[in-house]
Amino acid sequence: MTAAADRPSNAPVRPPFAGWLGTTNDVTKTFLAAGRIPGLINMAGGLPAPETYPAEALAAIARRVIAEHPQDSLGYGPIEGLPELRDALAARLGGPDFRLGRDNILVTTSGMQGLDLLGKVLVDEGALIAAQAPTYLGALDAWRPRRPRYRALRVDQPDFDAVAGLTGARFGYAVPNFSNPTGRLVPMPVRRRLVEAALATGTWLVEDNPYGGLQFDGAALPRLIDIAAREAAVVAPGAAPSAAPSSAYDGPVIYMGTLSKEIAPGLRIGWMVAAPEMIAALTMAKQGSDLCTSGVTQRIALAAIEDGLVERLQPDLTALYRARRDALCAALAEHLGAWFTFEVPVGGMFVWVVARDPRIDTDRLLNAALDAGVCIAPSSVFDASGDDRSAFRINFTLNPPERLEEGVRRLAGAVRRLTDAS
Amino acid sequence: MTAAADRPSNAPVRPPFAGWLGTTNDVTKTFLAAGRIPGLINMAGGLPAPETYPAEALAAIARRVIAEHPQDSLGYGPIEGLPELRDALAARLGGPDFRLGRDNILVTTSGMQGLDLLGKVLVDEGALIAAQAPTYLGALDAWRPRRPRYRALRVDQPDFDAVAGLTGARFGYAVPNFSNPTGRLVPMPVRRRLVEAALATGTWLVEDNPYGGLQFDGAALPRLIDIAAREAAVVAPGAAPSAAPSSAYDGPVIYMGTLSKEIAPGLRIGWMVAAPEMIAALTMAKQGSDLCTSGVTQRIALAAIEDGLVERLQPDLTALYRARRDALCAALAEHLGAWFTFEVPVGGMFVWVVARDPRIDTDRLLNAALDAGVCIAPSSVFDASGDDRSAFRINFTLNPPERLEEGVRRLAGAVRRLTDAS
Repeated sequence: MTAAADRPSNAPVRPPFAGWLGTTNDVTKTFLAAGRIPGLINMAGGLPAPETYPAEALAAIARRVIAEHPQDSLGYGPIEGLPELRDALAARLGGPDFRLGRDNILVTTSGMQGLDLLGKVLVDEGALIAAQAPTYLGALDAWRPRRPRYRALRVDQPDFDAVAGLTGARFGYAVPNFSNPTGRLVPMPVRRRLVEAALATGTWLVEDNPYGGLQFDGAALPRLIDIAAREAAVVAPGAAPSAAPSSAYDGPVIYMGTLSKEIAPGLRIGWMVAAPEMIAALTMAKQGSDLCTSGVTQRIALAAIEDGLVERLQPDLTALYRARRDALCAALAEHLGAWFTFEVPVGGMFVWVVARDPRIDTDRLLNAALDAGVCIAPSSVFDASGDDRSAFRINFTLNPPERLEEGVRRLAGAVRRLTDAS
Repeated sequence: MTAAADRPSNAPVRPPFAGWLGTTNDVTKTFLAAGRIPGLINMAGGLPAPETYPAEALAAIARRVIAEHPQDSLGYGPIEGLPELRDALAARLGGPDFRLGRDNILVTTSGMQGLDLLGKVLVDEGALIAAQAPTYLGALDAWRPRRPRYRALRVDQPDFDAVAGLTGARFGYAVPNFSNPTGRLVPMPVRRRLVEAALATGTWLVEDNPYGGLQFDGAALPRLIDIAAREAAVVAPGAAPSAAPSSAYDGPVIYMGTLSKEIAPGLRIGWMVAAPEMIAALTMAKQGSDLCTSGVTQRIALAAIEDGLVERLQPDLTALYRARRDALCAALAEHLGAWFTFEVPVGGMFVWVVARDPRIDTDRLLNAALDAGVCIAPSSVFDASGDDRSAFRINFTLNPPERLEEGVRRLAGAVRRLTDAS
């Protein structure tokens, strides 16, 4: 970034911005500007369908919790989150093989804040992050100010070596359920390998699970944190009090979740589950980030969880998104099948669309797509090096079926113009 | 921080935490632990009186805004904040000599987030911050992960040289109104010197103003941003379009405010006013920090501002706090006057109490005070070097007069034991 061009020429030079601001890529800027194009069909973001927000229920809850809990809602709260919400999350997020206590839980102001806090407590400049590749764009954004190095965890490759992947890293990062951006499930043997590698190397293993509640087909796989708790119990039976199921969780997996996909992103409520020493470090970082999460939104989240709102919404939400996934995949097969391949995801919000033709550059496709009135997320933004231009991520949750189909039709027009021109 | 002591001895070593986590001082930990002492009189924090929170009004507003604006409240919003809130803040925060546009405004998730974002966009490791000394503890916390160096701006000293103070710094930081921790007003000549130095050197000048609305006696002084706009117009009349009052603000002052002290901290709504190039950089940092501030709390804040809630609350709030300040100062004079001096602040939340006796160590006093059932904030936490142990900050807004007096009586007991023992 440079100083504004319209300052007087005799004005003194302003101090430089921090170095990382020079490392953001142009695609991100294109992306942000795209929001202003009228009539654009946005298939780039990870936005829920706004008609699913339970506005009436949340309006009533908000009035009630502020009136009944004015001090919790309106005052400064504990940095870690309101005790009642931490307890409710601990009860909800534990597993058959492990118990969670309040000290295992940090409430965050959105899942994104959790990623920011991770960078703050684990990354010094040049430290290594081992990230499932391609990698969630927002995680790369969150860690950029810490200036890390990256190692790609290519969990889809048959020879994936998890121990080599995690060794020497400050932490490993994975989105095992309907991975952002690929929409894939990390299969059970790879989950086990990741957890065993974390236990063997001591490396923290971050399990980011915003989409776990959005599974359309089949049964849920065990979470990494479930596997870690089980392995710890099997590997070291009674080796230490902390390994026994009756004591608080102390494993290497740091689990992250959010209400953004299952209730509403506007609450900005997320959570982290981790060993108490990690929660204590994250709390130090949160103190200097926003002191505490809003008591209003924490109390709304607690009441929504206690009222069973997530469970009541889930059937309609998954039915709606399943139908939209099917509509998008049908349109992709019909209009883009000649140039691209994709797998039908069993959950989440995205389809990952890979070019068959190596001449297709998806950064260039984004510009052509914007000209055609549709926005997609090119693979370069999910690559720490920014080099991968062979695929794109496309969202199916925001738009109704006919608009998804129109978006894909516009995209096909853009691809045609791009490949005709080259 | 070190690994938890109760992990099995054969467990692999976990990766190190980021270096800055080793730099937090013990006083901060004592502080955090103090919250759990039963019966403690907390005079350390900067907490508003909870009985002043307009719970009924905010409960009704919350219900209304979620029902009437479900998409704004519950969806993802623009990173910079809701356009209507940015416009309302621009209209509210401009001055007679300058106009603010939407591009001058960033909504933040609390004032603390604003400080975090400043560190992210302006501080590389080892970069220099010029901070009014003593310095707000929360600002030191927010910037710690960036590992800056500090230069003390001793604005109270008659020979204070603002140009030398700001030269070579990434930014200057000041709390001109009822400075945290000292409660003092930066006098008008010093304000002018700071602004002139910022204009002459090009250094950004951060004006943190959470307490501006809490003035008990006398008239408000012009803000640094008002002075900067006026100076720019005088120094360079028509030199550039950006210097004329009719165009958007482009000066070196970055102004910060919050609703935490005048309505309720639980909303976690703050704002930054700055030149558009700075707002753009801060927006990049906010994207990776929490994506956007909660739409629920933004919509509540907007409705509260539009309904005139701040103005309706202010007379009662200042009357209440004025009475509490008077009660605290009377108690300090009566019970601690032999050992300490202080000035009566004309606003804010704090009195800064300075030891007459150089043998008094206020870090040691904190421990003695906790034993006596009262908590104060020692000067070491407001000193970037952690060395100053000659004073403490004491709050008068949280507790009613009789409790303030009891707290000071306990504190006097602690001082007596400490000085008798030495």
